[in-house]
Amino acid sequence: MPSGKILVAQGGGPTAVINQSLVGVTLEARRFSQVTRVYGALHGVRGIVDEQFVDLTQETVANLELVAATPSSALGSTRDKPDIAYCQKIFEVLRAHEIEHFFYIGGNDSSDTVRIVSLEAQKAGYPLRCIHIPKTIDNDLVGNDHTPGFPSAARFVAQAFAGANLDNAALPGVYVGVVMGRHAGFLTAAAALAKKFPDDGPHLIYLPERTFVLENFLTDVKATYARYGRCVIAVSEGIHDASGEAIASLLSKEVERDAHGNVQLSGTGALADLLCDEIKAKLGIKRVRGDTFGYLQRSFIGCVSDVDQREAREVGEKAVQFAMWGEQDGSVAIRRCGDYSVEYALVPLESVAGKTRVMEDEFISASGTDVTDAFRQYLRPLLGAGMPDAHRLRAAPVAKILNK
Amino acid sequence: MPSGKILVAQGGGPTAVINQSLVGVTLEARRFSQVTRVYGALHGVRGIVDEQFVDLTQETVANLELVAATPSSALGSTRDKPDIAYCQKIFEVLRAHEIEHFFYIGGNDSSDTVRIVSLEAQKAGYPLRCIHIPKTIDNDLVGNDHTPGFPSAARFVAQAFAGANLDNAALPGVYVGVVMGRHAGFLTAAAALAKKFPDDGPHLIYLPERTFVLENFLTDVKATYARYGRCVIAVSEGIHDASGEAIASLLSKEVERDAHGNVQLSGTGALADLLCDEIKAKLGIKRVRGDTFGYLQRSFIGCVSDVDQREAREVGEKAVQFAMWGEQDGSVAIRRCGDYSVEYALVPLESVAGKTRVMEDEFISASGTDVTDAFRQYLRPLLGAGMPDAHRLRAAPVAKILNK
Repeated sequence: MPSGKILVAQGGGPTAVINQSLVGVTLEARRFSQVTRVYGALHGVRGIVDEQFVDLTQETVANLELVAATPSSALGSTRDKPDIAYCQKIFEVLRAHEIEHFFYIGGNDSSDTVRIVSLEAQKAGYPLRCIHIPKTIDNDLVGNDHTPGFPSAARFVAQAFAGANLDNAALPGVYVGVVMGRHAGFLTAAAALAKKFPDDGPHLIYLPERTFVLENFLTDVKATYARYGRCVIAVSEGIHDASGEAIASLLSKEVERDAHGNVQLSGTGALADLLCDEIKAKLGIKRVRGDTFGYLQRSFIGCVSDVDQREAREVGEKAVQFAMWGEQDGSVAIRRCGDYSVEYALVPLESVAGKTRVMEDEFISASGTDVTDAFRQYLRPLLGAGMPDAHRLRAAPVAKILNK
Repeated sequence: MPSGKILVAQGGGPTAVINQSLVGVTLEARRFSQVTRVYGALHGVRGIVDEQFVDLTQETVANLELVAATPSSALGSTRDKPDIAYCQKIFEVLRAHEIEHFFYIGGNDSSDTVRIVSLEAQKAGYPLRCIHIPKTIDNDLVGNDHTPGFPSAARFVAQAFAGANLDNAALPGVYVGVVMGRHAGFLTAAAALAKKFPDDGPHLIYLPERTFVLENFLTDVKATYARYGRCVIAVSEGIHDASGEAIASLLSKEVERDAHGNVQLSGTGALADLLCDEIKAKLGIKRVRGDTFGYLQRSFIGCVSDVDQREAREVGEKAVQFAMWGEQDGSVAIRRCGDYSVEYALVPLESVAGKTRVMEDEFISASGTDVTDAFRQYLRPLLGAGMPDAHRLRAAPVAKILNK
């Protein structure tokens, strides 16, 4: 059984609850007498390579609990995507510090990093226990019912659309809200949970799991507007044409690409503006407004699912237990075992690493522009307690006198 | 003393608490035996002209309380800006329905409508009591310490920047958040309340009360980025050059103008994108992200100040009391009389109508890119109870081994 120092780090995009997992690891590890130190690496794997460690053993419980309730990555994060050489460097530093447990909280890319580091340690015969702890608002990790961070972001999206629908009903027109998610539409689909009355928006939902055809989009908007006198639309930033090309890059002159060659989709309002321009130009509707939810949906302080908080804490705790009492490396996975309850499993790193889950067909309506009841049932318990609810006047009409 | 039927309507942009005022009017009016019916007009003054009335006397108290807690205008709103002829038409309909009290919940434009309708009634010798009830997230009504709707929107902006600051600290770069407010910078300035530690963002705040000079902006951003390795910026959508031309329209090819000739500033991410492009091009910083808070900041369900809720309810109640027990038309104004407590006054419609308050000089720092402590003291009690707070690890560093 390995012992000694443990290291925890956070990678990729922050979430509202990623610090719950950090604190889950820290507090649980401190319960094991063989753990001498709990280190945190600053800015993910970059902090390992640079030996930027902080000593979490010295943190007070009171402050750890406050940090747990704070969104974004308390240790800092990174977009570095380590190659083999980078992972070898990680391993060298871990060995120099006699770190025998490595916990990495992150998404698909982070799980692949853990996989490679685990292999390097095995090759070198070094007793390193490597555990990947799931986190992503995109909900796109395979083998998980859902991922920590997604429920809170989904709650933000649902609350945002509930409000946007009310605003759009007060001042009718077309509203386009663009939601994060390059390949997986889960977060965009969460907009559907904003609906309460049959005529509530979002009336149309466009997911990256379906090909986006501009002509069909305009036809859909026109029909909805004719029916309700208004139209609220949820659009994934990842919508693409039949060839897979992002609509954002098709319609825009210049695009920014990241280290992975991905087009930069967030941090710009271009897609919403372009869709709004099309609606104005082609359908002649005057009041057309677009919002891009951007970083608000993953970092807004004060919008969190208590279910998400609890589970993010638990995956951190379970990661330590799997490491201390188990004999293998792996990725902690969330499995639904009741309505609603979950259990945790350790799954092979290879089964998660670098893979992307997208929305299952059973979650998407036949029209391709709505979700199914199966999706609503799937998502509702994740949003947690105290979801704000929209109410209407019963509005008994008064008989006209002048314009009978 | 006038009696009989009363009419209430909601105009302009919705807020998180505008229904509190509606319910305040409705419940308070129902306490007066001389009030036979409480009518609501659908979609503001448009609903009066069209005789689209609903009978609020029939609403249950339980449902009214639920509607009060729901954001956006439950009766619907309008952007119609009535001219004299339109106001005469309003008056005709009020007379036809024997409505002797008219309550209009809205901003500057709405107060001007009430002023003209009041004049028309006086000219015709019709006993109509007209009361304007303040509402605007812009906080730009003169004669008020602040306006209902502003505190909740300010809370959203402060929470958004608190989260954006944490996100930007985790993944450093430049972040630009564009906030509503054409002439008054109060809502943008609320971003300052997100700061807790000295190095927290927003590091720079650009208000419409000061001339925006692109070169100075770039110099400020460069210096901040050099100092902190990152930069969080709050920008008002209303920033303009020395001639008063909106930066959004200067940098953008096409602009949309509304019925008042105002450039459409909200519902597009253009300003954030244009500022981000300038930073990337001129300063060579790679990670530059822009969000436009858009409609989220005024309609998001579940982010509300309890102080704002209470006061919005009270201005509705007081409006009815001023109408029933007073002898004159007017606008309900909020005055601060303690730290923190307020009282309500009825001020002449002419003193509010069509006027615009902007941020007082004492609220803006000498640099022009920050607020003063006076502003922080002014705003803090308005944000209400339970503001979420950001916490940090104390992060004791670990000595390096490989890279000493």
